[in-house]
Amino acid sequence: MPKIDLASIARTETTTYPAPFDQAVAGRHYRQLGPAIGLTDFGVSEVTLDPGAWSSQRHWHEGEDEFAVMLEGEAILVEDEGRTTLHAGDMVAWAKGVRNGHHLINETDRPCRFVVLGGTSSTGGEYSDIDMKFTGEGPYLHKDGTPY
Amino acid sequence: MPKIDLASIARTETTTYPAPFDQAVAGRHYRQLGPAIGLTDFGVSEVTLDPGAWSSQRHWHEGEDEFAVMLEGEAILVEDEGRTTLHAGDMVAWAKGVRNGHHLINETDRPCRFVVLGGTSSTGGEYSDIDMKFTGEGPYLHKDGTPY
Repeated sequence: MPKIDLASIARTETTTYPAPFDQAVAGRHYRQLGPAIGLTDFGVSEVTLDPGAWSSQRHWHEGEDEFAVMLEGEAILVEDEGRTTLHAGDMVAWAKGVRNGHHLINETDRPCRFVVLGGTSSTGGEYSDIDMKFTGEGPYLHKDGTPY
Repeated sequence: MPKIDLASIARTETTTYPAPFDQAVAGRHYRQLGPAIGLTDFGVSEVTLDPGAWSSQRHWHEGEDEFAVMLEGEAILVEDEGRTTLHAGDMVAWAKGVRNGHHLINETDRPCRFVVLGGTSSTGGEYSDIDMKFTGEGPYLHKDGTPY
C-alpha cells in the first residue's frame, strides 16, 4: 500500500560525524523512507528532534537540492542571515550550490518532527560553523582536505 | 530566505485535461513551488482540494516517482485495491512503473491540503478509469494512441 506505515520502518539515531560534532545530533531520530517505499528518484526521511537536538551540523550541498516540510512541533531554521521559527505546515527549500549553511534545531521542551527530501546526486558541500567538509563519498575532511 | 512564502507564489486552477475529464479537478488549486524556490532535482507542488475535488484523474507514472504528505484536512486515496483515508501527517509514495493508478479525492465539506513531489523524468503513464494516457510530451492520447 502506498500509504506509508511509519512504525514498520526502522528508526535510527546513527551519525557518521566525528566527535565532538556527533553530540549535537544525539537526539535526532530518523527513518529513511526511500528504500522501504521503493522510491529512487529522490531520498525521503522522516526526522524527529528531541528537545535540544539539531538536524545536522549547519551545512550546504554543492550538488543536491533539499526540501523540508514541518509536521509537528517547532524548530528554528538557522542560516547565515539568522534564525527563522518553523511550525507545522511550514516548508523550506535549499537549492544546491547556494553556499548558505542551514540546519534545524529544537529549542523547545517537546519533540518536533519534519520530512526532508533530497536529490540523489550528492557531490559534496561544507559545514558553515566548523572545520569540516564532505564529498560525494569517503570520509569527512578538514577544510584543508585532510581527513578526520 | 529558504522558508517558503506560499502567499507570494501564484496559485492556479489550470488543467490540460480534455473535457469532460477536467470537471473533476475544477476545485483543485495548486502552486508549483520548484521554479519559485530554485529547485531542479525534483518538482514540488502545494495542492488544495475544495470539497468534491480530485487531485487528478486516477493514474500511474511509467518513469516518475511521486511522494505526498498531507498537511490538513482529510482525503481519500483511491487505488486498485480500494480506498484509504489520509489525515494530516500521513505520507504516501508511488514508485514509478507500478501500474496501480492513484489519486486523492476530497469527500469532506472543507478543503484539504497536501504537498506532492515528483521526479523530473516523466516518460508517460496511463489513467486507470478512463480511455486516456499520456507521454512525456505532446497531447493526451486515447489508449489506442489517437490524440484527443
